[in-house]
Amino acid sequence: MTTRVLVVGADATGMSAASRALRRAGRNELTVTAFERGHHVSYSACGIPYWVAGDVSGPDALIARSAADHRANGIDLRLRTEITEIDLDTRTATAASLDGGASYQVGFDELVLATGAVPVRPGLPGVDAPGVYGVQTLDDGAAVLNGLTDSPRRAVVVGGGYIGVEMAEAMIRRGLAVTVVDQAAEPMPTLDPDVGALVRKAMHGMGIEVLTNTLVTGFDTGPGGRVSAVVTRDGTLPAEVVVLGLGVRPNTELARAVGLPLGEYGGLLTDLQMRVPGHDGVWAGGDCVEVLHRVSHRRMHIALGTHANKHGQVIGTNLAGGYATFPGVVGTAVSKVCDLEVGRTGLREAEARAAGFEPVAVTVQSTTRAGYFPGAVPVTVKMIAERGTGRLLGAQLVGQQGSGKRVDICAVALWNEMTVEEMTSLDLGYAPPFSPVWDPVLVAARKAAAAV
Amino acid sequence: MTTRVLVVGADATGMSAASRALRRAGRNELTVTAFERGHHVSYSACGIPYWVAGDVSGPDALIARSAADHRANGIDLRLRTEITEIDLDTRTATAASLDGGASYQVGFDELVLATGAVPVRPGLPGVDAPGVYGVQTLDDGAAVLNGLTDSPRRAVVVGGGYIGVEMAEAMIRRGLAVTVVDQAAEPMPTLDPDVGALVRKAMHGMGIEVLTNTLVTGFDTGPGGRVSAVVTRDGTLPAEVVVLGLGVRPNTELARAVGLPLGEYGGLLTDLQMRVPGHDGVWAGGDCVEVLHRVSHRRMHIALGTHANKHGQVIGTNLAGGYATFPGVVGTAVSKVCDLEVGRTGLREAEARAAGFEPVAVTVQSTTRAGYFPGAVPVTVKMIAERGTGRLLGAQLVGQQGSGKRVDICAVALWNEMTVEEMTSLDLGYAPPFSPVWDPVLVAARKAAAAV
Repeated sequence: MTTRVLVVGADATGMSAASRALRRAGRNELTVTAFERGHHVSYSACGIPYWVAGDVSGPDALIARSAADHRANGIDLRLRTEITEIDLDTRTATAASLDGGASYQVGFDELVLATGAVPVRPGLPGVDAPGVYGVQTLDDGAAVLNGLTDSPRRAVVVGGGYIGVEMAEAMIRRGLAVTVVDQAAEPMPTLDPDVGALVRKAMHGMGIEVLTNTLVTGFDTGPGGRVSAVVTRDGTLPAEVVVLGLGVRPNTELARAVGLPLGEYGGLLTDLQMRVPGHDGVWAGGDCVEVLHRVSHRRMHIALGTHANKHGQVIGTNLAGGYATFPGVVGTAVSKVCDLEVGRTGLREAEARAAGFEPVAVTVQSTTRAGYFPGAVPVTVKMIAERGTGRLLGAQLVGQQGSGKRVDICAVALWNEMTVEEMTSLDLGYAPPFSPVWDPVLVAARKAAAAV
Repeated sequence: MTTRVLVVGADATGMSAASRALRRAGRNELTVTAFERGHHVSYSACGIPYWVAGDVSGPDALIARSAADHRANGIDLRLRTEITEIDLDTRTATAASLDGGASYQVGFDELVLATGAVPVRPGLPGVDAPGVYGVQTLDDGAAVLNGLTDSPRRAVVVGGGYIGVEMAEAMIRRGLAVTVVDQAAEPMPTLDPDVGALVRKAMHGMGIEVLTNTLVTGFDTGPGGRVSAVVTRDGTLPAEVVVLGLGVRPNTELARAVGLPLGEYGGLLTDLQMRVPGHDGVWAGGDCVEVLHRVSHRRMHIALGTHANKHGQVIGTNLAGGYATFPGVVGTAVSKVCDLEVGRTGLREAEARAAGFEPVAVTVQSTTRAGYFPGAVPVTVKMIAERGTGRLLGAQLVGQQGSGKRVDICAVALWNEMTVEEMTSLDLGYAPPFSPVWDPVLVAARKAAAAV
């Protein structure tokens, strides 16, 4: 008998799981029906800021695989259709088309919940006014671009996280005057404040105004009800374009209704195989789950396409009778604002303390290439290690080209629980166009090893 | 009583050891006398090709610290002076100025041998003709540049290793027609031949002629005795400039005369602390020693400034009564030829077999950034793992900007003896300007994990 797999949410996790399961088990073993509320599947949401900036020609470029591709691979894909109820006892779900039509029942043996995340939208006056944009779906991207056709002059980005700073870059490259507003003391709250301060300073240098410690209280509207300003506790910022970059939260209403276990951040909990514990045949992955942080040993919500794709592979392998696990994350992220690259991995100082570590932090300045080589630019590396043991706990890098992806060295070191002393011996690629004779990461490790 | 440290060879290892020991122990505890045959100390030999290419303005840029800097730090530095004999029983050495003057004796308690490497010079007819250049010292660099002032048209580079291809780039950027000649089947013998073939193809695309499987038998000379051609078994290649890039061998004549232990490649043998075993108070490091390869468990000769600097730090710490070790290498190297970047680490297939492993190799094509992002360029990743266990044994990457330094991910994974299966879960930095959602290294690891 074939196993009926029901996939809820047809983006990275859902479609990776479905494709891998079918490829591995074959269509005689498995049937897959996938439901998606949106118009699109398998697109790169992380690419939207670059589409808005003009780096990417259009939304088609962001679609990794089309609905037709997936159908050709044997997946029964139903777009613009929502799963409104799930009965785990009878193994049936209720589907409803968002474009009208009667609801209907779908039976399943295995369930994959890949419902993603929803952007945080503050319940503030005026937040729904035209001209206030989110940045999650391709429709959002199209709406922002459409809003730029009237040649607006001023944009305010609410939220200084990754999406916020990436959208700030997009707006300034589109010729708008840009202000980023954030409640926190510094932009990029996944960095320590001292490193965030470097990002703020660099953004100022790019002509991006950054207002930190600033609470947004609402949005003024003008003629036609369009947004005209962002109101903060410290004053009013006129803007014809407002972008909300306040992060996302797990989309787990359906899971909650079914009674599945949720964590501290509202994300689904899973075991190592991405199975929902206590619920055989129920799998979850991607932006709707919490993941284990291998350094703090805590669960976190980190919405990143790279994790979502891995979850999909793991679920697909297991669905097809194989064995795969997702052993957690070390909190690696990389981003850029114009020509400034930012990489981070592991724990910030405050996170390290909250997890029970006593952190020792050092910061060094180095260059991305041999100092005498053309294109060598300064890079700042902050490294955090455990007092006494010297175990690496985290690292943050800020600099121009060649800075951000160096975080991978620290990410692999963290994964393997290396000490900073051990790291000083690492055999990294050296040649003048690529690195000083001591890679900046090694310079930081040496200083950290002497400090712990 | 102060400890008298004698340093033979005042480049990366010797001067790092001396500086660190003095900084740590203080001048009351230690005196350091350093002897150097050349005119310069602490310079970046790896930067010479880029100086010849015009990337670097002049030799001064390549000097990390001048003789005056070192003297100001308390090192008694004697340039153009050779140590001709060492008596380990009486703890005395004989020094001779290369610019004339009587020999003299120097007493010591601790000896640091940092005599570096000497370029391989084939004993072929005409090899000493004007117009045939080595690439090791700053004087060599100046000589090549001087040879270019006559507007020569044709250069032949003998040897297709790192220095050879880097000098080929320098010559073509200086406007010369360039041919690289090598005995091997492909350039860059530290790569597997299939990967070397990609480099050869790319070099052809840059207009660099690459003649492989070609044995050089001598050098023709013309008017004034200057070189006029490189003679090979397959024909004669006219050239007004000939660059020898045939690699280096450890400079250990003195060590041999003293009776110190040498390895298979003629390099000094040391223990983990960089002490010469059986000879208390004798230390060695840099290009004159052999290093332990952590994957093959064999000793190798790898002349690289990054190892030499680490050796110096280790020796300096130990000299000053501290404790430090050099735990070996994994064979990481990175280089470029014009816009082609090459990274390698670990063992080649043949090396893996020679060490007793049964290797499984896979090769994948990916891109350096998200495929839709501007500047995304193809990168080829070859990954080698042990059959059965799936342990990573080596990796090689070839592609344009953003390819070479990705080797560090594999270098850290190798250091920690990760399996390719474990690597598939690595939490690497992802954002469209930096990587596809699956980093090329992860794509290779997935394919390797399925193949072992």
